[in-house]
Amino acid sequence: MQNFESYNPTRIIFGKDTHVQVGMETAKYAKKVLLHYGGKSLKANGTYDVVVDSLQRAGIPFVELGGVKSNPRLSLVEEGIQLCREEQVDFILAVGGGSVIDSAKTIAVGACYDGDVWDFFSKGKMPEQTLPVGVVLTIPAAGSESSNGAVITREDTQEKRSFCSDIAYPVFAILNPALCYTLPKHQIAAGGADIMAHIMERYFSTEPHTDLSDHLCEATMCTLVQELPKVLVDVQDYDAWAEVMWTGNVAHNGLLGKGRIEDWASHGIEHEISAIYDIAHGAGLAIVFPAWMRYVSHICPSRFVQFAVRVFHVDLPMADTEAIVQEGIHRLESFFRSLGLETRLSEINIGREHFEAMGEKACNGGTLGGFQKLSPADVVKILELAL
Amino acid sequence: MQNFESYNPTRIIFGKDTHVQVGMETAKYAKKVLLHYGGKSLKANGTYDVVVDSLQRAGIPFVELGGVKSNPRLSLVEEGIQLCREEQVDFILAVGGGSVIDSAKTIAVGACYDGDVWDFFSKGKMPEQTLPVGVVLTIPAAGSESSNGAVITREDTQEKRSFCSDIAYPVFAILNPALCYTLPKHQIAAGGADIMAHIMERYFSTEPHTDLSDHLCEATMCTLVQELPKVLVDVQDYDAWAEVMWTGNVAHNGLLGKGRIEDWASHGIEHEISAIYDIAHGAGLAIVFPAWMRYVSHICPSRFVQFAVRVFHVDLPMADTEAIVQEGIHRLESFFRSLGLETRLSEINIGREHFEAMGEKACNGGTLGGFQKLSPADVVKILELAL
Repeated sequence: MQNFESYNPTRIIFGKDTHVQVGMETAKYAKKVLLHYGGKSLKANGTYDVVVDSLQRAGIPFVELGGVKSNPRLSLVEEGIQLCREEQVDFILAVGGGSVIDSAKTIAVGACYDGDVWDFFSKGKMPEQTLPVGVVLTIPAAGSESSNGAVITREDTQEKRSFCSDIAYPVFAILNPALCYTLPKHQIAAGGADIMAHIMERYFSTEPHTDLSDHLCEATMCTLVQELPKVLVDVQDYDAWAEVMWTGNVAHNGLLGKGRIEDWASHGIEHEISAIYDIAHGAGLAIVFPAWMRYVSHICPSRFVQFAVRVFHVDLPMADTEAIVQEGIHRLESFFRSLGLETRLSEINIGREHFEAMGEKACNGGTLGGFQKLSPADVVKILELAL
Repeated sequence: MQNFESYNPTRIIFGKDTHVQVGMETAKYAKKVLLHYGGKSLKANGTYDVVVDSLQRAGIPFVELGGVKSNPRLSLVEEGIQLCREEQVDFILAVGGGSVIDSAKTIAVGACYDGDVWDFFSKGKMPEQTLPVGVVLTIPAAGSESSNGAVITREDTQEKRSFCSDIAYPVFAILNPALCYTLPKHQIAAGGADIMAHIMERYFSTEPHTDLSDHLCEATMCTLVQELPKVLVDVQDYDAWAEVMWTGNVAHNGLLGKGRIEDWASHGIEHEISAIYDIAHGAGLAIVFPAWMRYVSHICPSRFVQFAVRVFHVDLPMADTEAIVQEGIHRLESFFRSLGLETRLSEINIGREHFEAMGEKACNGGTLGGFQKLSPADVVKILELAL
């Protein structure tokens, strides 16, 4: 087990009707709020009205910035920073999924910084101050509601980059599973793949003596595999949504990686795909992860055996290591397909034309990943396995 | 699943040699420290010297108060409060296990309160201010290093009571598994029973739809059952200690109870035993818990079947519910006995003479526990089953 630090100060407020209290929670921190969100669905499903009503009842003035898209854009972040300065905003309320939250976190650090906010993404500069951020989560997927990071896409250079800092944890995150009832099926499925990937990026580690953390990862993956299909059958199944939403949070609040060397190569490769093709991040991960697994499993087959046996209950003879490894990967792929996701690039009409550029960008002059350190050529081979 | 809040701001610093940096960590909060600890073992094993040296190198002046015993006493807390005021202490550093940490937390709130600190334990009064508390943990058991509560014994009335408050979370807790190498075997075993009990108090819940949280509890219990015996065989097995120490923290940092109705009857009953007989809290729990399980299992047998199957791998025919339930309890008891713990009051020379008084005190004018609401008469019957 590696030495580690564990710190997560976000207050999670979880359950039925909890978003009604967002005004009261916000009032603990805010004099003037930037209400940040995506698009039409929030207004169509009534969540927007409840949040606005709650802010008004709490007597908190706010300005609005909607229009966040998946793979959130630097240009909108810059608009948000400008707006915060002009309107003397002291709190950002993100109502949405990971894209909205990441955009909000970036506006929050950018508003307190004299330079270019992209410095935090491109130059390894650490933000020193932030406006506090609160969250009403509407899509369980990214885990950004209680993570310390954000991912932003810069349109002019097709770069998708992230920053991490302890000051980026939201001060609160409200998780009401009933807010998920109106999500489209493809978005639910892609979100599920993102959650699964957050656990697997931590789980596939060559670090020995991580028994508790192994068991916790497996517990979380088993729950997701069991509960996610239920909400695709009945999108108003509160109990199943509660499991999925809580799973999505635990998957990425930091706990499951403690003491481990994490990987994150599949995320890195997927970021290059969605930076160019603008597909949903989770949909891309469902394609990249099985290919990555097939490419690297030889490094530490026992880890893939444990995954197959404990998460997907493969019960082939233990002597036949390679068959167990492959069956585990196959069952993961079958799980993604059962959700309605594609698992090959060719199925979403992506060919090999940008593979070399993706490999170079993903490795960014070095190597990618912790399980096996990948070169640009390795990344290309993984992308070829994903075709 | 119940609605819930999840909040835990304690920074955990975990791993080899981490206690050497305690001075640097403390310097972030403190001008003058009360160094609070137990007794001789801390000086004999060298931990005291390392901590003092680290404080001195960081240039932080401190005063000392040792002498904390298991089942920590109100009288020493009052002495600590007095000392903090006289010496203008602004930070308490607890070096020890749960007793030292609970004593430190209570001194910390008492030093900021004009009234009698026992008000927080007896009158349901909530503390509004505290001195910050830091921890160097030397015994994995109580989980107090990142919990929001403290348990104190008032000698003159033989009362053992607790308080809980969000302000009671330590600001940091340093967990170096190597500091456990000098623990006596009985203390290791009793600590293990305490950890197991912290999980079981949460696990035995009649609340439906707690699948993730069930799996996380089971993951944590399985790890403890697997790893704790290893440190009793080789007390210098770092890897096993790391698992046990991290398990002890996860067991009581709040995560495992989210969405559940927790029980805590066994803790309540045990507090009455150790308030009178001054046995180790964990040793008492190893006796009370199996008796409690036998008394209440009829309320929700499926929960006890799940425990037996998933934690102790009982594989009797599923039709024979009662046999599975009893075998699960039997295996828990065997686990405690394998650690060298007694599982009957008669084995530690405790008879029934105070049972009625214990029942009354444990229920404190109402009922005890969440799984089955126990009356004083129920508590007496459980104590009789434990004889």
